[in-house]
Amino acid sequence: MADSARRFDLITMGRIGVDLYPLQTGVSLAEVRTFGKFLGGSAANVAVAAARLGRAAAVISRTGDDPFGAYLHRALAEFGVDDRWVTPVGAYPTPVTFCELFPPDDFPLYFYRLPKAPDLEIAAGDLDLDAIRAARVFWVTGTGLSEEPSRSATLAALAARARTGTTVFDLDWRPMFWPDPGTARPHYTEALRHTTVAVGNLDECEIATGVREPRACAEALLAAGVELAVVKQGPRGVLAVHRDGTEVRARPVPVEVVNGLGAGDAFGGALVHGLLAGWELERTVRYANAAGALVASRLACSAAMPAPDEIDTLLTTDGTAS
Amino acid sequence: MADSARRFDLITMGRIGVDLYPLQTGVSLAEVRTFGKFLGGSAANVAVAAARLGRAAAVISRTGDDPFGAYLHRALAEFGVDDRWVTPVGAYPTPVTFCELFPPDDFPLYFYRLPKAPDLEIAAGDLDLDAIRAARVFWVTGTGLSEEPSRSATLAALAARARTGTTVFDLDWRPMFWPDPGTARPHYTEALRHTTVAVGNLDECEIATGVREPRACAEALLAAGVELAVVKQGPRGVLAVHRDGTEVRARPVPVEVVNGLGAGDAFGGALVHGLLAGWELERTVRYANAAGALVASRLACSAAMPAPDEIDTLLTTDGTAS
Repeated sequence: MADSARRFDLITMGRIGVDLYPLQTGVSLAEVRTFGKFLGGSAANVAVAAARLGRAAAVISRTGDDPFGAYLHRALAEFGVDDRWVTPVGAYPTPVTFCELFPPDDFPLYFYRLPKAPDLEIAAGDLDLDAIRAARVFWVTGTGLSEEPSRSATLAALAARARTGTTVFDLDWRPMFWPDPGTARPHYTEALRHTTVAVGNLDECEIATGVREPRACAEALLAAGVELAVVKQGPRGVLAVHRDGTEVRARPVPVEVVNGLGAGDAFGGALVHGLLAGWELERTVRYANAAGALVASRLACSAAMPAPDEIDTLLTTDGTAS
Repeated sequence: MADSARRFDLITMGRIGVDLYPLQTGVSLAEVRTFGKFLGGSAANVAVAAARLGRAAAVISRTGDDPFGAYLHRALAEFGVDDRWVTPVGAYPTPVTFCELFPPDDFPLYFYRLPKAPDLEIAAGDLDLDAIRAARVFWVTGTGLSEEPSRSATLAALAARARTGTTVFDLDWRPMFWPDPGTARPHYTEALRHTTVAVGNLDECEIATGVREPRACAEALLAAGVELAVVKQGPRGVLAVHRDGTEVRARPVPVEVVNGLGAGDAFGGALVHGLLAGWELERTVRYANAAGALVASRLACSAAMPAPDEIDTLLTTDGTAS
């Protein structure tokens, strides 16, 4: 078997970039004096989160051909994520993202991804479809559908999977990345046809399904073709509904929030971990919730993805675990 | 007299943005861990440098309609630079610029100004031509000629000046800002017709004049219409030639360089100060050289612009002053 056909536990496909996070909290960017530099981007973060839990993970993405791009390769290597499918694009710089930290619930993002992010230049012809088919879990995001050639590449990868193994669609709705946000729904519908697990918050579920009530969202996602719908409701917890009738409602794990960004990616990496382990749905969702809470309690995202013992400790000390 | 007709010592027109400078030196962006945030952009920096020397300075520029834009207004106010002509553009974010610090002579810049910088959206119709005419010194830059509507606005402002007072053209050649760098020369020629003082390094002089030998550059600039040509040759010092036959060659002031970026803007602000004071050319150029050297010896640019006593001290202790 060629090395390119190595079977990964998880391959994610989507955004990668440099996150510049304030080293002062509770103030606007006008007042921030210094920033820390971190690996970011949802697809990259999910792969890092899974790798931290011991999973063999790789990411398919693109960077600028610049020192920030070199940094992202170095960071992926340090986090144990395979970077063979992260390639440079000469025409665009590596995206940078700033945020403001107003805990507990306001974390505005400022993206520098124009005129086009390199990760939207992923082309179908460059994909290693054998590896994508062979991955135990494959993960795509809604942003990957926002522009060509990334849209066609994302749909080609999903079609190649042909619903073998677990294929996760992170609904990931970021209207500012869409040249015309009104055109999103059909692409979401097409992606859901090839998806076995859909994950999203209420805004994202509404874009994908047209409904917003959590139970209705889950049912609409199941009707669109998925086996498991995971609806994140922020402070109201998570609703997960499986086609087999299993339903889990998990309350949030109480923590002191420092930076809510990245919590969803930690949730995603831990969700993948539980799905791979074959855990019961309730255990998986509770584990993912705890992973998200731990990242929310820390400044960094990728650099703050929790290890298994940290999640176990939180679950055993947290009152909601009883 | 309306407040808008207040007479400024200096009005600059051009770039403003947020500079993110590494807090670790001698390493690539891949290794930088933290960044400091500073006001940047050449036109803004020159105004700050002049204000630091006691001059009433204003800048004409534009920012994004975002927290970084709010920061730039705050920073200008703190530096004593009038910001009445700095307006927001809704369509584009405030530009950010990263650099790497490889002293003594390598300071690569990484601009995030695409798809378009707000400062290139300065429009002729928005200019306060009375105030521009009334300013004792008016300062424009080559980057302002790179795209419309900024190009027409810059030329309209220069035409309104009609060579009254001192009109400085900072040749400021940044090929990456030009959709087609081959089209620059005619715009430079047109701007020089309205210019009394031209300032540039050898690359910039070559774009403006087609020649590169310092004495030939100066003569070509004088032939193009200016009264004073200032040719910066880096480690070989500065050549300044006036139409009246005065010629000054000033060696660099020896300092331990920390960050060469911004030294040219410090030079510019001090040059304006000397011209306003009516000093002899040699004193003005030596003073500007010392101001540039002081900024080069410091990490920051705008925040490091020297006060008069600092320049005086360097000039009296420096061996080249004798």
